[in-house]
Amino acid sequence: MSDFRIAADIVAADNDRRAAALDADYRALGEKLARGGVDIGAITDKVSEFFVAVPSWGVGTGGTRFARFPGQGEPRHIFDKLDDCGVIQQLTRATPTVSLHIPWDKADPKELKAKAETLGLGFDAMNSNTFSDGADQAHSYKFGSLSHVDAATRAQAVEHNIECIELGAALGSKALTVWVGDGSNFPGQTNFTKSFERYLAAMAEIYKALPEDWRLFSEHKMYEPAFYSTVVQDWGTNFLIAQTLGPKAQCLVDLGHHAPNTNIEMIVARLIQFGKLGGFHFNDSKYGDDDLDAGSIEPYRLFLVFNELVDAEYRGVTGFHPAHMIDQSHNVTDPIESLISSANEIRRAYAQALLVDRAALAGYQDGNDALMATETLKRAYRTDVEPILAEARRRAGGAIDPVATYRVSGYRAKVSAERPAVKGGSGGIV
Amino acid sequence: MSDFRIAADIVAADNDRRAAALDADYRALGEKLARGGVDIGAITDKVSEFFVAVPSWGVGTGGTRFARFPGQGEPRHIFDKLDDCGVIQQLTRATPTVSLHIPWDKADPKELKAKAETLGLGFDAMNSNTFSDGADQAHSYKFGSLSHVDAATRAQAVEHNIECIELGAALGSKALTVWVGDGSNFPGQTNFTKSFERYLAAMAEIYKALPEDWRLFSEHKMYEPAFYSTVVQDWGTNFLIAQTLGPKAQCLVDLGHHAPNTNIEMIVARLIQFGKLGGFHFNDSKYGDDDLDAGSIEPYRLFLVFNELVDAEYRGVTGFHPAHMIDQSHNVTDPIESLISSANEIRRAYAQALLVDRAALAGYQDGNDALMATETLKRAYRTDVEPILAEARRRAGGAIDPVATYRVSGYRAKVSAERPAVKGGSGGIV
Amino acid sequence: MSDFRIAADIVAADNDRRAAALDADYRALGEKLARGGVDIGAITDKVSEFFVAVPSWGVGTGGTRFARFPGQGEPRHIFDKLDDCGVIQQLTRATPTVSLHIPWDKADPKELKAKAETLGLGFDAMNSNTFSDGADQAHSYKFGSLSHVDAATRAQAVEHNIECIELGAALGSKALTVWVGDGSNFPGQTNFTKSFERYLAAMAEIYKALPEDWRLFSEHKMYEPAFYSTVVQDWGTNFLIAQTLGPKAQCLVDLGHHAPNTNIEMIVARLIQFGKLGGFHFNDSKYGDDDLDAGSIEPYRLFLVFNELVDAEYRGVTGFHPAHMIDQSHNVTDPIESLISSANEIRRAYAQALLVDRAALAGYQDGNDALMATETLKRAYRTDVEPILAEARRRAGGAIDPVATYRVSGYRAKVSAERPAVKGGSGGIV
Amino acid sequence: MSDFRIAADIVAADNDRRAAALDADYRALGEKLARGGVDIGAITDKVSEFFVAVPSWGVGTGGTRFARFPGQGEPRHIFDKLDDCGVIQQLTRATPTVSLHIPWDKADPKELKAKAETLGLGFDAMNSNTFSDGADQAHSYKFGSLSHVDAATRAQAVEHNIECIELGAALGSKALTVWVGDGSNFPGQTNFTKSFERYLAAMAEIYKALPEDWRLFSEHKMYEPAFYSTVVQDWGTNFLIAQTLGPKAQCLVDLGHHAPNTNIEMIVARLIQFGKLGGFHFNDSKYGDDDLDAGSIEPYRLFLVFNELVDAEYRGVTGFHPAHMIDQSHNVTDPIESLISSANEIRRAYAQALLVDRAALAGYQDGNDALMATETLKRAYRTDVEPILAEARRRAGGAIDPVATYRVSGYRAKVSAERPAVKGGSGGIV
Repeated sequence: MSDFRIAADIVAADNDRRAAALDADYRALGEKLARGGVDIGAITDKVSEFFVAVPSWGVGTGGTRFARFPGQGEPRHIFDKLDDCGVIQQLTRATPTVSLHIPWDKADPKELKAKAETLGLGFDAMNSNTFSDGADQAHSYKFGSLSHVDAATRAQAVEHNIECIELGAALGSKALTVWVGDGSNFPGQTNFTKSFERYLAAMAEIYKALPEDWRLFSEHKMYEPAFYSTVVQDWGTNFLIAQTLGPKAQCLVDLGHHAPNTNIEMIVARLIQFGKLGGFHFNDSKYGDDDLDAGSIEPYRLFLVFNELVDAEYRGVTGFHPAHMIDQSHNVTDPIESLISSANEIRRAYAQALLVDRAALAGYQDGNDALMATETLKRAYRTDVEPILAEARRRAGGAIDPVATYRVSGYRAKVSAERPAVKGGSGGIV
Repeated sequence: MSDFRIAADIVAADNDRRAAALDADYRALGEKLARGGVDIGAITDKVSEFFVAVPSWGVGTGGTRFARFPGQGEPRHIFDKLDDCGVIQQLTRATPTVSLHIPWDKADPKELKAKAETLGLGFDAMNSNTFSDGADQAHSYKFGSLSHVDAATRAQAVEHNIECIELGAALGSKALTVWVGDGSNFPGQTNFTKSFERYLAAMAEIYKALPEDWRLFSEHKMYEPAFYSTVVQDWGTNFLIAQTLGPKAQCLVDLGHHAPNTNIEMIVARLIQFGKLGGFHFNDSKYGDDDLDAGSIEPYRLFLVFNELVDAEYRGVTGFHPAHMIDQSHNVTDPIESLISSANEIRRAYAQALLVDRAALAGYQDGNDALMATETLKRAYRTDVEPILAEARRRAGGAIDPVATYRVSGYRAKVSAERPAVKGGSGGIV
Repeated sequence: MSDFRIAADIVAADNDRRAAALDADYRALGEKLARGGVDIGAITDKVSEFFVAVPSWGVGTGGTRFARFPGQGEPRHIFDKLDDCGVIQQLTRATPTVSLHIPWDKADPKELKAKAETLGLGFDAMNSNTFSDGADQAHSYKFGSLSHVDAATRAQAVEHNIECIELGAALGSKALTVWVGDGSNFPGQTNFTKSFERYLAAMAEIYKALPEDWRLFSEHKMYEPAFYSTVVQDWGTNFLIAQTLGPKAQCLVDLGHHAPNTNIEMIVARLIQFGKLGGFHFNDSKYGDDDLDAGSIEPYRLFLVFNELVDAEYRGVTGFHPAHMIDQSHNVTDPIESLISSANEIRRAYAQALLVDRAALAGYQDGNDALMATETLKRAYRTDVEPILAEARRRAGGAIDPVATYRVSGYRAKVSAERPAVKGGSGGIV
Repeated sequence: MSDFRIAADIVAADNDRRAAALDADYRALGEKLARGGVDIGAITDKVSEFFVAVPSWGVGTGGTRFARFPGQGEPRHIFDKLDDCGVIQQLTRATPTVSLHIPWDKADPKELKAKAETLGLGFDAMNSNTFSDGADQAHSYKFGSLSHVDAATRAQAVEHNIECIELGAALGSKALTVWVGDGSNFPGQTNFTKSFERYLAAMAEIYKALPEDWRLFSEHKMYEPAFYSTVVQDWGTNFLIAQTLGPKAQCLVDLGHHAPNTNIEMIVARLIQFGKLGGFHFNDSKYGDDDLDAGSIEPYRLFLVFNELVDAEYRGVTGFHPAHMIDQSHNVTDPIESLISSANEIRRAYAQALLVDRAALAGYQDGNDALMATETLKRAYRTDVEPILAEARRRAGGAIDPVATYRVSGYRAKVSAERPAVKGGSGGIV
């Protein structure tokens, strides 16, 4: 296996060029925050300890049902993917773990652990796949998986999820994320109640196979690939699942899986209140499950989600430790650059949320002073916290401007020399 | 008090003119259904026993924030409204009960009962109002009611709801519907968690005041009058309320209170499955809470909702007895005509759902035969069941064509002579 | 080439079994319509002359970005596809033409014409593809085609469209449909104005290559595959294109390409009024471009679209001759069955629209009698016109119940014996 | 008439307290921008010359169809409203003009001009009202105004618009904004084509009455108060209007009048490209026409709109001079505070858009470097430009922190002493 890591001196050299400007900006911001009674050092420390997992499937170029247009140096397998994830972590210091997707990332756990350790990486939640058929699969998921009318198909899907747990346990993962596309395209195609009963029974079997210290995340989604109904269609159904299964079961919130106009931050608040927020799949969207880069379309919405998370920390909610994961499809950018940028955007929203004056906010809320309450959020949000993010990266050994450093490093060209070119796929599906 | 009831001979005369055509259509439909093994008489009987409550506020002309354009003979008070409701019931025989809205309909319960009995009417669920301020109200609901930050305001709202229960108990009602507009217009204006805690605590007090055989319906709504967040924003939150309060608490589903593209029939199925479907506010909508006439925009959606209700009956779900109520705003029609028509549309959807061949449907579902499953629904849906509806009305003493009979009767002109004209309101609100 | 046509005696035998019931239903409906002054024979004649084109890509099983689950006997190439289209036409007599998609359906035009003639088929609008990359393509469409920043890429896309015209001319087609996925996934990725200028210039070159009696249809779509902006995003932009290009350019309306809650029938009316309605891609949708079977989700919406078309006929709009085409993705059904069913649904909406009493409707509209106006539409809509559709099919030599006859015929099993099985595709794209 | 202007020394005193912090922040930002080659002084100058009109109806507390909860010191008439507008301008120096709404603001033009001059105010576009009925109105707008089936009603609406032009001409206004709520609540209620023909004919009469140097703005809106169809429902129809009428007719874009998920900035670009962007009604929305404060829900969207405006300036588009107007409903805040804050948010988006490095952006666009293109926008957007906005206000004689100064001034209490309290309205409309 080649080692494609970016040489430390490349990072150092690029940082050197940017150090003076960062110092000036960090100092100016520090003085401004100090005037408001905020210690920039404390914020920087908190940001340094905030991490988000990278999805293994995110480092390859994504696509739509119409086509996929691969880039150069596409990763061939999980070991290539881990190399790419290693670079993201090296430059951002915000992404020390990787989320695997089985069966695509199936490999000898010892080799996986060894490779990850070389790169300074660990493993986050495992992801099963029962939304497409594998080459040698006995039962097709065309008409569903965990909710399928056929018991053998459901058993196969349960078995696959248990296999994911076992591999994850060998890797040090502590959670399984279950997303199924089960649903229907026609009114009447499925019986809503019976489908959900079958889903719950199958999930109960998976739940039984969970190690003591694991969590089970169920993920809801309004539609796609099913276009009339989806078994786990919204957070209401997702909550019923987590409640029915037990304390280790919690809900995963993907920011792009909601109906138009939905107030997502409110769903986050409700799940926190009832002890069922498991974590996030971060991304952004304008229309549906667009899987765009986090914060690229509605950055204020991302901030408002983090405002709830920081508020829960502030209130000391017991048992509150949501998993932070990215889930994006990078169709027109270098996936490594998008993941670097997205990890930064997520930290940015966190840093801005940390700047909210929560005592003042509570006062305005209690006084029904809507204008000053919202202005309190806006003041935090419009603070340009980039110096804090850059400083946190620099202190941890990362890059001040990680995308720029990545480009300077020539990483993509280097891996392209080793990884064969892939032809564009004509989806053939319209 | 005048008696404006339509003379029986007017109904009889209009029915006579239509009897031959109805006989022919009923016979032809009966023969066609018999070929499929369905007894038209049994369906007609079931339809005859299906009722939906009329909202007292529905017989006056509605409006928007921009304007209200009253019609002729607007009801002046609850007794005028009961007269109008009496006519609807007289002609449709589908609406034997009225839902009151307090404080607008507040009156001596004895007088209310007496008037209703004269008209052959009873009382359905009571509706409280804490979304606008009364003239002599101590605390304003500008910033909320049951979830208000101020304890005295919450207490006032609780008190009002208890008063509604008491009046309802005197009238023979068995349920209280609580809809609040509480929410916020700005991010940060309210704390989602604290607001909901306050709401739940206030509702618990109302719950305690419920008579043994009453139910408490909470109603969710995505937005309006609050435009950023709403305390009871969706069925997920609504379920949490009903579960937290106890067995007498159930969820009310208004067909226009959901996010765009929402699969409402699936929400209905989930609430049935978890024992929390309290009932409906029927209407139709294209954009938001448009409060249009039931079945006027998406009649197939109304059918799909009834498909779930009839399926629950068919499966013999225990404790299943949802309340059927209309909640509409009639801005451009004679409200009596819209309510007659809507009651018929709701019965139509019920009749069509009764025609679904459920054994065949289950077979197609078990065989993943999506095309024939959906065709099974469509076959029932496209049956023109108007002869069944008309026959059910005729047999019960109503009108074969109730809107036509209503027009012939001259009712609107008669009440207009007694009820003074109302000038159009310039909302002044843009 | 095999001949898989269904034997005439199979159709005849199945029709025989159903003749008596159809006769009875047709007679009963005829009597009912006659009472309202409508001649069922005239309606049946009009329905018999209404046709809709089948898309060549529709006879193969479709999929999503997550997976594709092929069925048995998937067509291997355009000649297999034509066989399948032939069966649809044989049984429905509603689909005498096929719409080709290039490059997938590229073949010797003489062979195509000969095969089509054997099957009694002709060719409707040609469809170009510049949303995915072909194997031997010089310039990638990853970042656009007709609006690409690079002139050579645009020229290649123009050239491809001209090639489609040339092939179509040889086949007797009279129109080219251009849909491009060009757009962006990030704010700032493209300059809206420059992109549209490039698109217009490229389309002008294609327009110049049109034969005298051809039309050019541009198709708008809100989003997908681009998730932030799309060059031809709505009917407003589509109208600007058609107006800029000239009289042979018109707009194509796909029922699934609009924003949530859009009033599509109104867009149809506007395009008719301004002489720019080119035609339709019929399908149905609940969320986005779901490409579900026509009339399967909102049948009343389909009726309302046809209400506009029949109204334009009724008013004698000059130059009004929209193209009727289906564009669907059949993921969970036998595509042949879905296309048979969809062609029937489209004819159903047409037949129902023909039943609207337009003189009465105009009277209600002029009198602001909203209730009776909408009831006039509803009366036509709720007429079960299946006997008319079946009779039209029977008279033209088709099947009374075409899906049933298709199943009896064993067509799918027969082609499956010849066409090799295809393995399910794991999209690999999340 | 009282003079409620805020004493200059109050402003000066509050500015003094904030001067040192502003100086420091302005200096630090200037240094940072200078590093990127941007002159903060030039940006400050441009911001100082950017103005937005205040709507007269915005200084009163708004409401919904459910209720209206007035605040203290509600303005009684246009002269009170002008006082309030004067304060907004005095503190922000961003709102030197007022947009009047007739008939509410009808008064002797000489008195209006005199009062405005005292306050340093001028008059922006006139707004007509044909969506509600006045007390002494001959023909009701219940079923429409400019598109009404009745010629006399249309003539009355035309006459009213001409009266608005005449009053505006006397006041120095240069534009008329026409928004009508005409539409329908039921399929079939109106004929789409005939309605639009009547609308166009009526607008043509208004157009003829325009003075030479005036513009006519038509405003589209998806829905409300009509809930099935609206005559001017989207920008496509709006464009057809402007094109049909002539060069003085242009389209007005209200940010809350679009379908869910619509890319509004793209519509802005299209209207600029085709010479038909008349101007804006700024506000923000999450669900429908929520009329929330500009920038309060999706501030990045507001920035992206301004990105198009600044880009048009940058490209030197001929005849480009859109009108900037606010149109909001302030239901839970002091309207003066919301308008101060909104004017600032609008200037903020303009200032951020000015910071976009357009040469770099064009380079990234030409190179299909989506990541850096969007990052170029984001860099400008995340700059905290508050010091520029504050400095622009200070230099022009306004307040560094205008909301704070307003609160210190005691203005609301002073006017409340003179203006009688208004009772909360129970809408009575559900």
